[in-house]
Amino acid sequence: MNANQTMVKMILDRWHAMLGQFETALNSLSDEQLQHEISPGKNRGIYLLGHLIAVHDDMIAKLDFGKALYPELEAPFITSPDKAVAELPSAASLRAKWTELHTLLNGKINSLQPEEWFQKHTVVSAEDFAKEPHRNKLNIVNTRTNHLSYHLGQFILIQ
Amino acid sequence: MNANQTMVKMILDRWHAMLGQFETALNSLSDEQLQHEISPGKNRGIYLLGHLIAVHDDMIAKLDFGKALYPELEAPFITSPDKAVAELPSAASLRAKWTELHTLLNGKINSLQPEEWFQKHTVVSAEDFAKEPHRNKLNIVNTRTNHLSYHLGQFILIQ
Repeated sequence: MNANQTMVKMILDRWHAMLGQFETALNSLSDEQLQHEISPGKNRGIYLLGHLIAVHDDMIAKLDFGKALYPELEAPFITSPDKAVAELPSAASLRAKWTELHTLLNGKINSLQPEEWFQKHTVVSAEDFAKEPHRNKLNIVNTRTNHLSYHLGQFILIQ
Repeated sequence: MNANQTMVKMILDRWHAMLGQFETALNSLSDEQLQHEISPGKNRGIYLLGHLIAVHDDMIAKLDFGKALYPELEAPFITSPDKAVAELPSAASLRAKWTELHTLLNGKINSLQPEEWFQKHTVVSAEDFAKEPHRNKLNIVNTRTNHLSYHLGQFILIQ
């Protein structure tokens, strides 16, 4: 295993581990429980689920894998806070989207070669990337994994 | 910036960012608020604070920087769940320990050379490390950063 492979494994192991923990929590909750708040007055489970789908869907374009599958989720789950949108998609439809998205995304992630992870992501310019080589594709997964951990800690509070 | 420096920056940037966010939240809470639960029936703020200090204190030995500063915090904040120990240390003493610990730990972290981060941490054997080079010092910071993100997501729920 060379240095690039080692670093890629460090980051992807965390990504897959946190996704697995989130899915275990998600599968343990009923659709009705997803309507509960993580804490009084705070976000509901269904909002966190939709938020994570929308943020991970946006990784497809940032990693140069293609186009987002569900751009319509950006408005209710990223631009808007919870309870600002009258009707959110159903829990059943979000569960299906979660599975479809991560099947596609992880298929692409697992097929990328180690050296490709250190290429620039699509949002940084070539000029900036030359000065800031840490703004690479692997760092997209790194930062999104920490974002997922943050919301996983909240999601498991749902009762 | 060579490849090792790039990888170290990716991980350490997240560590320092999450620590900064936690400290902002901590400084916004009174000692009385730290006694509140993150959600009804769940951990209290003071428990999460002590838990993070104990887990980060343990990084000193794992990163081969020396000995833990507060080994007495392992029993109440790692071995035991919240509310199992009759009397926890005061919020004031934990705030002081948080600062003292991270001043020392981050001083050591920031002085480590990039190539040293890819050496084995103290808990893995040389034989296992030869087969699993991702079990290096940088991965200790990587996994602890995700752990911190998880509890930060909970800590900011305190009202």
